[in-house]
Amino acid sequence: MSDAVSPLASPFPAMPPVAGVTLRVARAGYKDWGRCDLTFAELAEGTAVAGVFTRNVCCSSEVELGREQIKAGRARALVVNAGNSNAFTGYRGREAVEQIMVQVADGLGCDAGQVFVSSTGVIGVPLPKDKARDGVAAALVAEPCGWEDAAHTIGTTDTFAKGATAQAVVDGRTVTLCAIIKGSGMIAPDMATMLGYIFTDAAVSPAFLQECLSAANRETFSCITVDSDTSTSDTVLAFATGKAGNAPLTAFDSPGADAFASALQDVCRQLAHLVVKDGEGAQKFIAISVSGAVSDASARTVGLAIANSPLVKTAIAGEDANWGRVVMAVGKAGEPADRDKLSIGFGGTWAARDGLPLADYDEAPVAAHLKGREISIEVDLGLGEGRATVWTCDLTHGYISINADYRS
Amino acid sequence: MSDAVSPLASPFPAMPPVAGVTLRVARAGYKDWGRCDLTFAELAEGTAVAGVFTRNVCCSSEVELGREQIKAGRARALVVNAGNSNAFTGYRGREAVEQIMVQVADGLGCDAGQVFVSSTGVIGVPLPKDKARDGVAAALVAEPCGWEDAAHTIGTTDTFAKGATAQAVVDGRTVTLCAIIKGSGMIAPDMATMLGYIFTDAAVSPAFLQECLSAANRETFSCITVDSDTSTSDTVLAFATGKAGNAPLTAFDSPGADAFASALQDVCRQLAHLVVKDGEGAQKFIAISVSGAVSDASARTVGLAIANSPLVKTAIAGEDANWGRVVMAVGKAGEPADRDKLSIGFGGTWAARDGLPLADYDEAPVAAHLKGREISIEVDLGLGEGRATVWTCDLTHGYISINADYRS
Repeated sequence: MSDAVSPLASPFPAMPPVAGVTLRVARAGYKDWGRCDLTFAELAEGTAVAGVFTRNVCCSSEVELGREQIKAGRARALVVNAGNSNAFTGYRGREAVEQIMVQVADGLGCDAGQVFVSSTGVIGVPLPKDKARDGVAAALVAEPCGWEDAAHTIGTTDTFAKGATAQAVVDGRTVTLCAIIKGSGMIAPDMATMLGYIFTDAAVSPAFLQECLSAANRETFSCITVDSDTSTSDTVLAFATGKAGNAPLTAFDSPGADAFASALQDVCRQLAHLVVKDGEGAQKFIAISVSGAVSDASARTVGLAIANSPLVKTAIAGEDANWGRVVMAVGKAGEPADRDKLSIGFGGTWAARDGLPLADYDEAPVAAHLKGREISIEVDLGLGEGRATVWTCDLTHGYISINADYRS
Repeated sequence: MSDAVSPLASPFPAMPPVAGVTLRVARAGYKDWGRCDLTFAELAEGTAVAGVFTRNVCCSSEVELGREQIKAGRARALVVNAGNSNAFTGYRGREAVEQIMVQVADGLGCDAGQVFVSSTGVIGVPLPKDKARDGVAAALVAEPCGWEDAAHTIGTTDTFAKGATAQAVVDGRTVTLCAIIKGSGMIAPDMATMLGYIFTDAAVSPAFLQECLSAANRETFSCITVDSDTSTSDTVLAFATGKAGNAPLTAFDSPGADAFASALQDVCRQLAHLVVKDGEGAQKFIAISVSGAVSDASARTVGLAIANSPLVKTAIAGEDANWGRVVMAVGKAGEPADRDKLSIGFGGTWAARDGLPLADYDEAPVAAHLKGREISIEVDLGLGEGRATVWTCDLTHGYISINADYRS
């Protein structure tokens, strides 16, 4: 992990164990570093799995395999490699992943297709099979560890360990969700990658787990952006061991299904926010709320156009209530918008309404708001009922330093 | 103009007069500065006009009016205001534009619809009518000036004056094209705006002039990006006075039409490159050539995804041959691509072919190339015959300083 911790970092939360999940870490030595870099989660028999993956068409072998594996809906193990993303490595990269799957399956006596692998780090270098073999062998016999150790071990240039937890009452049982995530620090010369894992002791059918995860993803991970670039390896997996003993959730009309889905979304939102708060060079966390769009999807597209605008992000870095740049970003989003119905505010204070700067606009509360760490931008398109909130960080000299001053 | 001239600047070219075009500049005083800030071009009777405008749906009144005016195809005058973009100013902004149109039309004895107006600068502040009136009155009686004075006067935070010229032989006559452009410096608190004007003495029908300009635009202005943000005011207008005396060009089968269209595209390409070379904080000019796409349009989309990637742009700033970031950008473009057919090079040297890093990749010539000011990135998708070239600049600390360190 990097030395300079993000000013938006928060302490790692207290997170209880999840029945049916055993965590271990080991040192494969993918890079010349002293830290553990292989994370191994052993999962109880019968664990359901669901996943969402990057839409980048140049994805890694891990992503290609993972997409296939989740179709069967069952998982017994997760292995996360840190320091080598194994992306753009052709058949040699795929062989390395398959070797890990077989080795873990042999160790646990399970099917290789139930072993999920993720990798993050340098690209274009096939994951070294010998180091992976030794790392997995060590992990299989290591002492179990806690969430924070695992969260540190999946990280690369993350500046702090990221975890989130929630509980829900399902069928009279309290079920627990614990999750860890890495991103979006940069491991040179790779692009930022987000890898997230959610573990729960709830009993959930694979199909319903996927339904809940996909829905949560739309409102959380798909609503964050650091720099508009999409990694070739982004992955979020959810594992449900069933050890809580509730009657399995199979659909939204199962008792407690709503509570479980809400808890899952809550955990996903926490994780998504943590990734933004560790965005490269981030000094401010920005929530952009768009209302009055013709649909929720349209509102999200407009929100992301604002969140991805370098001019908006640099304005926030400069603590400048530059609503003109927000107007520009709304206009370029390609969604229905009417300049003369547009309203824009910061921190709950309108700067412009119905297409015109407010005559009595009081900049003092806005200026005070923009000096803080958590910034909100409100946009009302004035057209319909569609709404969405997206999150990003500011664009600072730190981003340039991390990504340009480094030489591979 | 700014004090620190772009390292990519070039001297203003020698540009001949264009018969039927008289340039004048005046000081309206839109900002508290001593320079001229109103540019006035008087055009001979019968001048044809064509235009391309921003697709930003939150466009300025100038853009809305200009789109209507070009339908009639005739122009007698152009007025460009510097220091106030008049965008997001509602009916008051529109009134200011209409006042200028009427005042110039009265002065020249022409129809107000033949007076084109552009404005660039601060947004959200209606263009002050009194200053505009005095500025136009002064411009109407000012001594004629040359291209470089006009190019300076339309500029805002541009760091150098930008012009381009070309000639073509049409119907036995030599026709001249001279053009000026401003952008993409930033005038706080506005977004960067590109305003370009092409003047020719060729006789061209308005419809064919529009056809040539639209075609040139697709290959030039639509293929450049500084930071992916789209101004609310971007405008390029072409004026053809007909004073060269050639038989009017009305279609591509008119004698000399191809030569004229080529010269127009050449001028547009020169102007587009000048805008990139004055990109905020630009230290390097980057040409991205995409081949092997399923179509030319697909190649352009992939090229712009690369050109707009902050991770690619910071890598070039860092003189880092980071082909992995190019892979990422190709993959996120949303166009057909196959990781295992992808080849990526820098300065004519392949770093990766067919989805794999080259075993005998010699980084020395690439490293030398990346130390230069003019960088090329080659991408072969290996799928079809589609190709396109797009241009951008690197993303540097200078960009952040210009856009974040400033406070409105």
